[in-house]
Amino acid sequence: MILQFLAKKKLSRFLGHSFSASYTDSSDDETSPRDKQQKNSKGNGDFCIKNIKQADFGRREIEIAEQEMPALMALRKRAQGEKPLAGAKVVGCTHITAQTAVLMETLSALGAQCRWAACNIYSTQNEVAAALAEGGFSVFAWKGESEDDFWWCIDRCVNVEGWQPNMILDDGGDLTHWIYKKYPSMFKKIKGIVEESVTGVHRLYQLSKAGKLCVPAMNVNDSVTKQKFDNLYCCRESILDGLKRTTDVMFGGKQVVVCGYGEVGKGCCAALKAMGSIVYVTEIDPICALQACMDGFRLVKLNEVIRQVDIVITCTGNKNVVVREHLDRMKNGCIVCNMGHSNTEIDVASLRTPELTWERVRSQVDHVIWPDGKRIVLLAEGRLLNLSCSTVPTFVLSITATTQALALIELYNAPEGRYKQDVYLLPKKMDEYVASLHLPTFDAHLTELTDEQAKYLGLNKNGPFKPNYYRYADVPFNPCLLHHDFIL
Amino acid sequence: MILQFLAKKKLSRFLGHSFSASYTDSSDDETSPRDKQQKNSKGNGDFCIKNIKQADFGRREIEIAEQEMPALMALRKRAQGEKPLAGAKVVGCTHITAQTAVLMETLSALGAQCRWAACNIYSTQNEVAAALAEGGFSVFAWKGESEDDFWWCIDRCVNVEGWQPNMILDDGGDLTHWIYKKYPSMFKKIKGIVEESVTGVHRLYQLSKAGKLCVPAMNVNDSVTKQKFDNLYCCRESILDGLKRTTDVMFGGKQVVVCGYGEVGKGCCAALKAMGSIVYVTEIDPICALQACMDGFRLVKLNEVIRQVDIVITCTGNKNVVVREHLDRMKNGCIVCNMGHSNTEIDVASLRTPELTWERVRSQVDHVIWPDGKRIVLLAEGRLLNLSCSTVPTFVLSITATTQALALIELYNAPEGRYKQDVYLLPKKMDEYVASLHLPTFDAHLTELTDEQAKYLGLNKNGPFKPNYYRYADVPFNPCLLHHDFIL
Amino acid sequence: MILQFLAKKKLSRFLGHSFSASYTDSSDDETSPRDKQQKNSKGNGDFCIKNIKQADFGRREIEIAEQEMPALMALRKRAQGEKPLAGAKVVGCTHITAQTAVLMETLSALGAQCRWAACNIYSTQNEVAAALAEGGFSVFAWKGESEDDFWWCIDRCVNVEGWQPNMILDDGGDLTHWIYKKYPSMFKKIKGIVEESVTGVHRLYQLSKAGKLCVPAMNVNDSVTKQKFDNLYCCRESILDGLKRTTDVMFGGKQVVVCGYGEVGKGCCAALKAMGSIVYVTEIDPICALQACMDGFRLVKLNEVIRQVDIVITCTGNKNVVVREHLDRMKNGCIVCNMGHSNTEIDVASLRTPELTWERVRSQVDHVIWPDGKRIVLLAEGRLLNLSCSTVPTFVLSITATTQALALIELYNAPEGRYKQDVYLLPKKMDEYVASLHLPTFDAHLTELTDEQAKYLGLNKNGPFKPNYYRYADVPFNPCLLHHDFIL
Amino acid sequence: MILQFLAKKKLSRFLGHSFSASYTDSSDDETSPRDKQQKNSKGNGDFCIKNIKQADFGRREIEIAEQEMPALMALRKRAQGEKPLAGAKVVGCTHITAQTAVLMETLSALGAQCRWAACNIYSTQNEVAAALAEGGFSVFAWKGESEDDFWWCIDRCVNVEGWQPNMILDDGGDLTHWIYKKYPSMFKKIKGIVEESVTGVHRLYQLSKAGKLCVPAMNVNDSVTKQKFDNLYCCRESILDGLKRTTDVMFGGKQVVVCGYGEVGKGCCAALKAMGSIVYVTEIDPICALQACMDGFRLVKLNEVIRQVDIVITCTGNKNVVVREHLDRMKNGCIVCNMGHSNTEIDVASLRTPELTWERVRSQVDHVIWPDGKRIVLLAEGRLLNLSCSTVPTFVLSITATTQALALIELYNAPEGRYKQDVYLLPKKMDEYVASLHLPTFDAHLTELTDEQAKYLGLNKNGPFKPNYYRYADVPFNPCLLHHDFIL
Repeated sequence: MILQFLAKKKLSRFLGHSFSASYTDSSDDETSPRDKQQKNSKGNGDFCIKNIKQADFGRREIEIAEQEMPALMALRKRAQGEKPLAGAKVVGCTHITAQTAVLMETLSALGAQCRWAACNIYSTQNEVAAALAEGGFSVFAWKGESEDDFWWCIDRCVNVEGWQPNMILDDGGDLTHWIYKKYPSMFKKIKGIVEESVTGVHRLYQLSKAGKLCVPAMNVNDSVTKQKFDNLYCCRESILDGLKRTTDVMFGGKQVVVCGYGEVGKGCCAALKAMGSIVYVTEIDPICALQACMDGFRLVKLNEVIRQVDIVITCTGNKNVVVREHLDRMKNGCIVCNMGHSNTEIDVASLRTPELTWERVRSQVDHVIWPDGKRIVLLAEGRLLNLSCSTVPTFVLSITATTQALALIELYNAPEGRYKQDVYLLPKKMDEYVASLHLPTFDAHLTELTDEQAKYLGLNKNGPFKPNYYRYADVPFNPCLLHHDFIL
Repeated sequence: MILQFLAKKKLSRFLGHSFSASYTDSSDDETSPRDKQQKNSKGNGDFCIKNIKQADFGRREIEIAEQEMPALMALRKRAQGEKPLAGAKVVGCTHITAQTAVLMETLSALGAQCRWAACNIYSTQNEVAAALAEGGFSVFAWKGESEDDFWWCIDRCVNVEGWQPNMILDDGGDLTHWIYKKYPSMFKKIKGIVEESVTGVHRLYQLSKAGKLCVPAMNVNDSVTKQKFDNLYCCRESILDGLKRTTDVMFGGKQVVVCGYGEVGKGCCAALKAMGSIVYVTEIDPICALQACMDGFRLVKLNEVIRQVDIVITCTGNKNVVVREHLDRMKNGCIVCNMGHSNTEIDVASLRTPELTWERVRSQVDHVIWPDGKRIVLLAEGRLLNLSCSTVPTFVLSITATTQALALIELYNAPEGRYKQDVYLLPKKMDEYVASLHLPTFDAHLTELTDEQAKYLGLNKNGPFKPNYYRYADVPFNPCLLHHDFIL
Repeated sequence: MILQFLAKKKLSRFLGHSFSASYTDSSDDETSPRDKQQKNSKGNGDFCIKNIKQADFGRREIEIAEQEMPALMALRKRAQGEKPLAGAKVVGCTHITAQTAVLMETLSALGAQCRWAACNIYSTQNEVAAALAEGGFSVFAWKGESEDDFWWCIDRCVNVEGWQPNMILDDGGDLTHWIYKKYPSMFKKIKGIVEESVTGVHRLYQLSKAGKLCVPAMNVNDSVTKQKFDNLYCCRESILDGLKRTTDVMFGGKQVVVCGYGEVGKGCCAALKAMGSIVYVTEIDPICALQACMDGFRLVKLNEVIRQVDIVITCTGNKNVVVREHLDRMKNGCIVCNMGHSNTEIDVASLRTPELTWERVRSQVDHVIWPDGKRIVLLAEGRLLNLSCSTVPTFVLSITATTQALALIELYNAPEGRYKQDVYLLPKKMDEYVASLHLPTFDAHLTELTDEQAKYLGLNKNGPFKPNYYRYADVPFNPCLLHHDFIL
Repeated sequence: MILQFLAKKKLSRFLGHSFSASYTDSSDDETSPRDKQQKNSKGNGDFCIKNIKQADFGRREIEIAEQEMPALMALRKRAQGEKPLAGAKVVGCTHITAQTAVLMETLSALGAQCRWAACNIYSTQNEVAAALAEGGFSVFAWKGESEDDFWWCIDRCVNVEGWQPNMILDDGGDLTHWIYKKYPSMFKKIKGIVEESVTGVHRLYQLSKAGKLCVPAMNVNDSVTKQKFDNLYCCRESILDGLKRTTDVMFGGKQVVVCGYGEVGKGCCAALKAMGSIVYVTEIDPICALQACMDGFRLVKLNEVIRQVDIVITCTGNKNVVVREHLDRMKNGCIVCNMGHSNTEIDVASLRTPELTWERVRSQVDHVIWPDGKRIVLLAEGRLLNLSCSTVPTFVLSITATTQALALIELYNAPEGRYKQDVYLLPKKMDEYVASLHLPTFDAHLTELTDEQAKYLGLNKNGPFKPNYYRYADVPFNPCLLHHDFIL
């Protein structure tokens, strides 16, 4: 059940990625990879992928991705001498794309051994998997796995004679779940879990609450840098992109209501305002509401403007934000879409009634037609617009991958006792380090503190630069929680 | 020594306030208030102010301020029935202005008794003090106190027969300091300290670190709402205002470098970019640096652009950010000013050398002239531009005052054990409440969660609405620290 | 030769349109329409199209377009009683799309008879042509005409027994050219030409200069409303759309140089600045250059920034703005594209040399690879990005079509002597009328002058509202040229 | 009667200027300058000013202004060799400020003889007048002239034995009016009039219409560059400045209605939107209305929003835009001000009724109080806010002064027949030249056309660069009107 939900969610994310990769896909034959016996050019057969012959093509994809992920390449160079992951045995379960390959080859360059499965049954780029297998990685993944294949691949990563993982890199929590269920004793040797997704992080916090988390876990999803890029900066661009690609709508003069003024909502509002739309905001949190006011948006209840708006965008992470009653009152041609964290924000199910006609007018675009002829334009059936109908820039993926690599290094090298059996946010210093590795992309030049200035501010010259109560925190200030040395 | 510094700092803030109030000032005679015996119309003489006859004029000032502080007025109404401050004896030390008077009369309406002194020797509005005295408040303050007067007034608030404070409201820490020094035993009955200023908060953390803090203290300065308004939103407007009032400079096409991209820097950059300036940013923190890049600013070292810019603005809170070497390289007519937290950001002392000529061309504006005729336009002698040369909107003061009132209520009513002898940030729920009280000003309508939605999100319908790791926090997530009931 | 150029230009425009229409295209058989004998359901066979059976599908397309072209629908209603085109025989040569069909049916509703050919050999929507033929229009056009077909179709529109056109609606000048060449005597009965394209207008001015223009012509291309929408507002959105669809580039933090700061450049710069790019501008005209400065852009020569920028955009209408020397100096991964009026702005020919490798990585996207591995990303081979790689919103097409309709009405109804054998811009009052017909789309409410105000301003209450020297004009003020009555 | 109006209007402008100059004013004695006999250090006494002893101080003011008027200084250098004004005898009537002095000394450097009076009885900077007299200029002006003084001064400029003007530089038309009335025969020798103000230009067009204009006149007011700077760019900044200086209002979240979306309205709207205000627009012209929509503003009628807005700004040039009925419906605290061309936009007279109380709360700020206690904040009594309550940047004055100088040169040197007895706009090429002289201020680098490009575009490499129908023109295209050589 949960798997189904995840598969759906990840599928749409994959569809996003595939915009850039689709022209490279090729489906050769119908035999299941599980029934084939393949070896790479060095005679190694410890993998299971679609077609090892696609390796060259996959290599080219990886090389192009390397150009756009300078931070990982820098990390390779900077940390290679000391091999901070020497001895690490990483089992991973993520989307298998060119960007992931750059991450895996970086981990390898830093000393780690890796075994990898896909976290989604549709998202594997077969050529990339081939290139990884050719390069000696034990990859178990292909595009179009069955549910049985999915768990089989994960099991093949974990259940190996003479090799036991000591680090987990997970995206969605399925790999972690599998080990908990099948091989709980493995956790004795595991030094930590790095988890990227909202869902996986949620599961970890639940484990922690229940007292069942038996190793430290790093919540990569909520790192400052990742959040800012996944949400504010990325959504600022993808809301425009997603709407244009699906509807060709002109933004100028359009009336838009954005539900929710968190980072995602802020990005959407800023972009649409800049393009000449008139934007209304709804909020439940008075602090975010006041920010919306100060940023120049009318704060309304949805009902106040639902009759007049041309576009409705949900960014709340909540459920049933737009319900049938709202949809009934929208005007002809109104576009409805979701940029939030779940696919429940728009009550799409309520539109599956006999008196309404659905007409698929384009990929990801449905007209829902009322008996009086009114048409509502529903995008991506209420799933995430930015993942379904636009693409995720490599730059954003680079930030995530770099954060994952650093989290692995931190957990693997942390002295005894630094991390307990709990879920941790990334130390701010590591967040700052991820950011610093991405500055050269912008030819940006950081200023260094003088000794005198550092002393005046009571800061280490190398950071971290902000107190942990910077901006959002309502726990007592406790500096002890903040400062400790960091491996790089 | 510290007092000197504070007096200077506060003086400039007062100058800001006085923009709106200066036409109401009148200096009647030269007798020291300490030598006069005055009584109000009810025969009460427990106060010491300039001239009780100015009460009517002060009352009008207070009434005008009430119109612009709807949140406090709402608080009066909402909480008046239950009188949450019944029994509270508040001793306060703040600027004494019409806005403060609205706060004091609110505290009184909620059940508190108040005695009050000024936190600055120049900032008292005499008419307002008169109106307060006429209304029965024990106020000890006038414009133009000597240092001896200053401490005498504070002492008169605290040292009373038959009355002992149980709450402290401080701005700068001088009142707290005085009680620590003179009447330490008073702390037995004191339930808590509410402190507003950066300096005062710093002193409290030092006390806490040294294990000498003997009551809970609330750091009002770092509440989300106050920070956003004092910094981002207020500076977005005051940077333009301060520059215009002093130099009449046209912003369009000007090249500007802003040192520091925290909230203050973000506000300055956004405003100047919007007015058509070309803005460069310097930063030491890579996360803020990356934000500057994504927001469209070239990130540079100061030396890279110092020769070409028309305006230099410091927003770092650091010292010696702009030094003589930079000033020597600036072009003729370059404007230099400071929006940061200290008056040390620009090394003004380095300009006090014989070869440079200073010419005061307008209030707060100096031309510093090099031997070759080059002129640098230095504003407010390097002190805070927005406090010296622009005004603080009442709306911002309203947010601060409301936060202070709520902090007093919270500390006074907190059950045994909720707060220990430490410095606390405002519970997020109170921050949210302050925000909600200010929404009607914008005719803003908040959306309420349905029961179903609240359950789905795992939130209380009345907030708080954000996890405590929202955006900036690097401590382990611990929900226990977050939720507790709140009096209002 | 000219035809070739036009076909190329128009092809790319068509490709833009087809984004929205491509899912409706179907190619049935290979027989040339010229070899088929088809009749509509009423037995009429005076047309030549691909397949009359597609009429129903085309009708649905037209109905959807009608919803988005409220101005033409309003014009139908408002002017229908008096039929201002009664007796008009309009021969037209434009793209044949659903939007054009709405125009043609409007002209018909206003009293005109119409015969129509396509102005481009690829741009006809066959289903729409079928719907028009079924509705009784004499349409001669299909997708994929040969050059011979192209002229044959035009000739079939013009050369009819017992029917002679008295109005020409042209897009590109080919129809006008054909009549000049083959049937010059027809001009005796022709009351005027309405021309939409830059190229066609240019040809008309040349005819006028040479003294060979024998009827009045209306330059619809340069109407204020059309210009603003085709250029500023449309490009503000399409630059982002075109770049995203082709390259998925993240705009935040990117350095961009925009060559030319006319309306197109202004739109591009505003959009990219709003998305967080750092934008440089080049200009030849000091007035536009000063505007760029005041709008916050560094004005540079291309050479100053060519090494550092991530994106180069040409918007000049000039030739060889970006030449091989610039391309040689760009950094790896630099994106190069053209938003200007010609395909000569980038010297693409200079890249067709043996040492450079071209790699087509996606539709409309080429990597040009230097011997050292440097890749330049060239979009649309230097043709117009917004027409090749994004779409034109129906709203923009609606403005053009409405303007064309009004121009026809004006020329057809103008009293003797109002227009001579010259090229005219649309009377401002008509421009204002086009604008007013589009205001309801935005639920926008215009204010009306009171009688007293109109008198005070010396204006007619119904406009025109601006003197003819408003903003850009350097001819003596001559009010006589301005005011005359207008038919609607 | 007209004079009264002008004096009022100019007075407010003067008040604007005086913001920067007020600290230099000194009033020495009460004797009328007409009763004093003064001589400069060279024994010359052909002037009448307040006090020749202030010359040194005035000289310093002029030198500071020179630094900020680089275009005039460049003009001096560039044209000095050939002295294009050799033989010119210019009589001028303008505000006499440091900026005007830079203009006068430039005219002199180019070969002209000048005699000058003030166009406003209050606006003369006495020290500057003294410096000019000391430098040999025949200046007749002082601060605080009577109406009789005003005309006496003008007469002393014109009515001189042995000297007759051949050029007029006027601001407001009073000088021109005086010569028409008293010395009409002078026009035989006068080569042209250069007029800067709206009012003066209006009078010239009326003369022209009536067939009474007997020399060519140059309308400097409507030059593109001046218009853009006086309106769009200057107002974008001065609306914020004017509101802040008078009311200290916080812009964020405020609801504002701007009446009129011409250049002034566009500037106001852009600035307020950027500061976080929610802006509504009213318009009578559908083209401007559509622009407002596309720029993201709700287009409304004033009545729709009058109850909810916090600020009302008029920018129409019309009368009675805000009337008593609107004022009655505004909410408590609403700020009302005028940025348009006349002081009639707000019907201030309607507020002078017995039931309303006026309270002057600050310079230029009145509270108008309704019987129920509602207060409206009226700024500058409805006169121009930006001239009354903010300052005009020297950069804007520099553009105007440079344009005046070039217009004089053009008219003085134009070959017989180029200009007839009509009112002319500045040739575009001169507009471009003014712009180019101001680019170095921004370190802006103009691109030059190659020969090949100029040929391709059909342009002269030195401009003009735009056809005369660029953007706003509704007269037939006539290239003959456009191109002619230009003296510089």
